[in-house]
Amino acid sequence: MTTSRLPLVSSHHRRVVALGGGHGLAASLTALRLLTEDLTAVVTVADDGGSSGRLREEFDVLPPGDLRMALSALCDDSDWGHTWRDVLQHRFDSDGELKGHALGNLMIVSIWDLLGDTVKGLDLVGRLLGARGRVLPMAGEPLEIIAEIHGHDPDRPDEIVEVRGQHRVASSAGVVSSIGIVPTCPEPCHEALTAVRDADWVMLGPGSWFTSVMPHLLVPDLADALVATRAKRLLNLNLEVHKGETRDFRAEDHLASLAANAPDLRLDVVLADPSVVPDGASLRAAAAELGAELVVAPVAARGAAGVHDPLRLAAALRDVIA
Amino acid sequence: MTTSRLPLVSSHHRRVVALGGGHGLAASLTALRLLTEDLTAVVTVADDGGSSGRLREEFDVLPPGDLRMALSALCDDSDWGHTWRDVLQHRFDSDGELKGHALGNLMIVSIWDLLGDTVKGLDLVGRLLGARGRVLPMAGEPLEIIAEIHGHDPDRPDEIVEVRGQHRVASSAGVVSSIGIVPTCPEPCHEALTAVRDADWVMLGPGSWFTSVMPHLLVPDLADALVATRAKRLLNLNLEVHKGETRDFRAEDHLASLAANAPDLRLDVVLADPSVVPDGASLRAAAAELGAELVVAPVAARGAAGVHDPLRLAAALRDVIA
Repeated sequence: MTTSRLPLVSSHHRRVVALGGGHGLAASLTALRLLTEDLTAVVTVADDGGSSGRLREEFDVLPPGDLRMALSALCDDSDWGHTWRDVLQHRFDSDGELKGHALGNLMIVSIWDLLGDTVKGLDLVGRLLGARGRVLPMAGEPLEIIAEIHGHDPDRPDEIVEVRGQHRVASSAGVVSSIGIVPTCPEPCHEALTAVRDADWVMLGPGSWFTSVMPHLLVPDLADALVATRAKRLLNLNLEVHKGETRDFRAEDHLASLAANAPDLRLDVVLADPSVVPDGASLRAAAAELGAELVVAPVAARGAAGVHDPLRLAAALRDVIA
Repeated sequence: MTTSRLPLVSSHHRRVVALGGGHGLAASLTALRLLTEDLTAVVTVADDGGSSGRLREEFDVLPPGDLRMALSALCDDSDWGHTWRDVLQHRFDSDGELKGHALGNLMIVSIWDLLGDTVKGLDLVGRLLGARGRVLPMAGEPLEIIAEIHGHDPDRPDEIVEVRGQHRVASSAGVVSSIGIVPTCPEPCHEALTAVRDADWVMLGPGSWFTSVMPHLLVPDLADALVATRAKRLLNLNLEVHKGETRDFRAEDHLASLAANAPDLRLDVVLADPSVVPDGASLRAAAAELGAELVVAPVAARGAAGVHDPLRLAAALRDVIA
């Protein structure tokens, strides 16, 4: 069964941990599930918008949305897996109280209440989906993102203000100059720390830089594990480096902000699509400062700006892992 | 496997259809699942209270609550079945918008929206639970119960007024004198009609008499199927015949109201606990008028008034079926 399901690679026993959130992490997982049978997602828990934000407010729980999306990306490739993925991803469309809630979010919160254990609850949803990997939260308690944002108020473009909450940070018209979390030293997820420590590869990105990628490095125990692990470390750069939170950022600036927030973290590989590498020498030098080799490979989807192509990404990651 | 799971009976190939709603139907199903491998529940769809009522209002769907409860009663007797039953039965407890909703109701409504097919949706939830039987709605569209109630307004005890809505009827302080549904000729559930026509046994009750048992006889196509079927017909009388909707009713009055609402319906067996048969001769005569034999057997749970004991009920039904 192993060989028939993963015929493309010889890496299927590699232990891979992918860190992130939202659509970026889902893209990573969709690629990585083709490459390994030992895959763990470590997911941001700072979301405070939409369905997740409402549930966080109503029940004081981890925001389930990014966890749900990661689980969905790992669903078994069968009628059963696809059907339950679609059920979990289903959003209520009405003018009433359920409008906008994702059924999977409500299911995860119910299971947490029932089992009283975050990780066991996510594992149960994983079993429902026949998930080809495990999904864990990056911390054991919900986090708030706090950012210093330059030009948050369009009327005062030179002012730097503090903005609280992932949703407000991610949708700000300004540019993030620094970022933090509250609580500063959250309860860790021990299973996630163990997965990182025991991994062969850990992978950061792609994803919203300050709200899906960087937060992992702000959880002290998780950052320590990422520094201490003997795993190789890969950073998968975004395709649209200049958008939103990181407007006016070059790829090199991403690496610099990484170094600023996690000075002890060394990388082995920085993976970038040719479209974000106008100046190979400069980015190669920035990667080298972090200890990493720059790998430039075509990983973008055609016809959908900013979206990774799962098969091209899988091919590039396979070549790196191999 | 068949013999190891159903060692108590020789009836496991009998096709049994149980009609009802709420806790009464759940009690029937809990007993019948021990007796047959071919079990179908046909469930009332007139509820307009609680979580079901809110969902009906928000999405214009069949009220899912009684369907969910019937599915839960049929869950596989395994860790998996019990866990997902508990997830479906989980109710949100908060001060917010989800308060009081049952997760299973939200799941069923999502699946209906996704699949666009009521019966396929219920079958999918049944597969999740490993349900030992099938659950179908008694009609293809939501119904409204309309009752004439004597003494609905405590200040005017002699007045008869029309009360609309199952929740208001079931919680009225008065006594129901007649009952109807709107629409009067609802879209049927064809799978339910087929199940009734092909059954070896059809079973009515126990349950709230006017809101869970009688409504099936008011759906013309379903009533016709119940009259036309070559199945044997059993009426399982309630344990607390004098409560709520049927205050001041004797067991005989239940049979009379059945005859009034479904004049063509004949019965084969009326099953009653000794506690509701103070006068055996009178009830036996009333049963005989409907063509039925009266079977008096102890089916009440000890220590919980009005509740059927699943094993005693199973024993009594087994003896009847055999």
